[in-house]
Amino acid sequence: MTHVMRKPAAVIGQSGGPTCVINQSLVGVVEAIANNTEVGKLLGARYGVRGIIEENFIDLTEVPAQTLQTIAVTPGAALGSTRDKPNRAYCEDIFKVFEKHNVGFFFYIGGNDSADTARIINELADEAGYELRVIHVPKTIDNDLRVTDHCPGYGSAAKFVACALMGDDRDCASLPGVKIDVIMGRNAGWLTAAATLGRQDERDGPHLIYVPERKVSEERMLADIGAVVGQFGRCVVAVSEGVVDEEGTPWAYKFVKTQERDAHGNIQLSGTGAIGDHIAALVKSRLGITRVRSDTFGYLQRSFAGFASDVDQAEARLAGQKAVEYATSGDVDGSVAFKRTGNGAGYGIECFLTSLENVAQLTKNLPDEFIADSGNNVTDAFRQYALPLTGKLPKIAKLF
Amino acid sequence: MTHVMRKPAAVIGQSGGPTCVINQSLVGVVEAIANNTEVGKLLGARYGVRGIIEENFIDLTEVPAQTLQTIAVTPGAALGSTRDKPNRAYCEDIFKVFEKHNVGFFFYIGGNDSADTARIINELADEAGYELRVIHVPKTIDNDLRVTDHCPGYGSAAKFVACALMGDDRDCASLPGVKIDVIMGRNAGWLTAAATLGRQDERDGPHLIYVPERKVSEERMLADIGAVVGQFGRCVVAVSEGVVDEEGTPWAYKFVKTQERDAHGNIQLSGTGAIGDHIAALVKSRLGITRVRSDTFGYLQRSFAGFASDVDQAEARLAGQKAVEYATSGDVDGSVAFKRTGNGAGYGIECFLTSLENVAQLTKNLPDEFIADSGNNVTDAFRQYALPLTGKLPKIAKLF
Repeated sequence: MTHVMRKPAAVIGQSGGPTCVINQSLVGVVEAIANNTEVGKLLGARYGVRGIIEENFIDLTEVPAQTLQTIAVTPGAALGSTRDKPNRAYCEDIFKVFEKHNVGFFFYIGGNDSADTARIINELADEAGYELRVIHVPKTIDNDLRVTDHCPGYGSAAKFVACALMGDDRDCASLPGVKIDVIMGRNAGWLTAAATLGRQDERDGPHLIYVPERKVSEERMLADIGAVVGQFGRCVVAVSEGVVDEEGTPWAYKFVKTQERDAHGNIQLSGTGAIGDHIAALVKSRLGITRVRSDTFGYLQRSFAGFASDVDQAEARLAGQKAVEYATSGDVDGSVAFKRTGNGAGYGIECFLTSLENVAQLTKNLPDEFIADSGNNVTDAFRQYALPLTGKLPKIAKLF
Repeated sequence: MTHVMRKPAAVIGQSGGPTCVINQSLVGVVEAIANNTEVGKLLGARYGVRGIIEENFIDLTEVPAQTLQTIAVTPGAALGSTRDKPNRAYCEDIFKVFEKHNVGFFFYIGGNDSADTARIINELADEAGYELRVIHVPKTIDNDLRVTDHCPGYGSAAKFVACALMGDDRDCASLPGVKIDVIMGRNAGWLTAAATLGRQDERDGPHLIYVPERKVSEERMLADIGAVVGQFGRCVVAVSEGVVDEEGTPWAYKFVKTQERDAHGNIQLSGTGAIGDHIAALVKSRLGITRVRSDTFGYLQRSFAGFASDVDQAEARLAGQKAVEYATSGDVDGSVAFKRTGNGAGYGIECFLTSLENVAQLTKNLPDEFIADSGNNVTDAFRQYALPLTGKLPKIAKLF
């Protein structure tokens, strides 16, 4: 009589702000596990780590292949997400559930906080001598994870922002004035910088781009806008929700009434039009310009349906597939990362695994070479970096 | 020796808030005139009627065909637009310029104000015994013109709003809470109603839709939201920027600080996040819900690049072509209108000409049969009406 070892199960969860392609990575994992003989059933944790401690799982091995293909192109986190940031005690509870369900593989799709959660759980497993492979699959529209060339989710959000500005600039050219567009990205200007990607010449907006990596005073921004209006008779401004003043304090802290903070102590910036309205009011009152409008792009940037970047979709899927390949290739843990193997027409990536410590908690800002010396725009080097990630942008033309 | 009569010239202008397909109509006119022997040169008036009185024209017969094709898919008004609303004296100035340039045809692409301008100019020509064919080509994302089944520009804006809600609802399902989405449409709820078009079942948002055609008090809206949260644990609300209280007063009038009014005496509603922020603050404070976010979709609804409805694009082009056909078919004036010849899979339209008086100034609200008896949603009849106009919407799926 032989004793048949039950194959270890895998758990997968999604965490943090969703993206348009976070489900591509999920489906990448599901498909790769279906083709893998080392893993038993795949449990999807509903609402991230919270679903693990509540043992709120769905069996993903039973989802029809056709449904999976549609899930892959659906924005948002199909398993549900969470803003919980587990401490060590929380992670111990997670680990207990893993032991109970004979979990040998943990895939966590998220940003740098999720990488930190993965890191702590991995430590607990090591201390207990429990064999657990922990793989973090990166996602964030903020593009601010370390090590990797770029993050799944960024290309689609960048495409949305670029196309929004392309159209909005033509709208502003039709009825000239000042237009303020507020773009997501609390600490890093990657997404705001993408506003430039559809520009054809210097007459096109956005004429000014303000990222959190550079301080700007109200006086300076007003002077910049006034100068552009003097030159072109109008001005389109792309500004990060995390724009900071000359002291390095976020502008938002001065006038965002709600002091709602998330589990990480950050004041809520998105989901309010306050920053845009503030800048628009400044421009009206101080520059005496009548037609001033602001739009805050908000959650559409990370969730708009049917418009994801093809490149981003394929790469997010690949990241999920690679996570399974790494997890079943030996006693490894880490975060899936991309290395760029070519640029422009020869653009390509290859995947590698970096340690969870390299990604956990830390963020990556726009490097100096991507920001114009003026501090109010981005460089051609940034455009070369970002353009391959959005896929093809629509063509537009001007009559004059 | 024979005297060769110079063929009468044509003037074309674009007016009011641009759309994603207003240039399709422009190119439709340009192409049709290129193939027509009755019209001389085609002058494009820069910035609408203002370009006419300033004689600020560009010769559209010289634009390369390749450029025209790209102009057609470019959002915004390629000729520039205007908010000027000409009175009789202004129209007399326009008429003088027409006489000076031997203009025999005037095409004006715009909404009901543009139709009124066209109507006055037409009257002046009649009074002077001057032969002028005046054709109004409809455009508005608001879809609120009389007579026509629907307006070029609406289908693309409706597609944008539908896809925004599809994605935003999945985002809200990922991180449950209350989400308020504020949608353009001062007086009519057509665009706000389009928020429903991607819904698959009653669990999907938007769970509540508020249009200006129905009064709603703050108390009532809060009660509605509370009930949905009780049922589904979250709530997505689509609300028109023109939402009115129990007295019929726009909510916006209470708290929009700027009292900027346009030439028509309307208070500026778009280009500010104030309404959404107001509702979100109400929900937080009165219902005690923590995660409440608002987004105001703003100008992206009428200008987003690369995402126009195929149906809308083709119909806007057709409207321009038909305008030339009508103008050169006899002594007629009027506004191009659509009649629906079939619905669902058999959807189709045919064009006809209606009088300028029928369209000028007037607006068309959502009819009662498109609004649910509850006053906080729309009906299947509306969905049957609107779905053919957006073209195919993306497919999405849920895991639970």
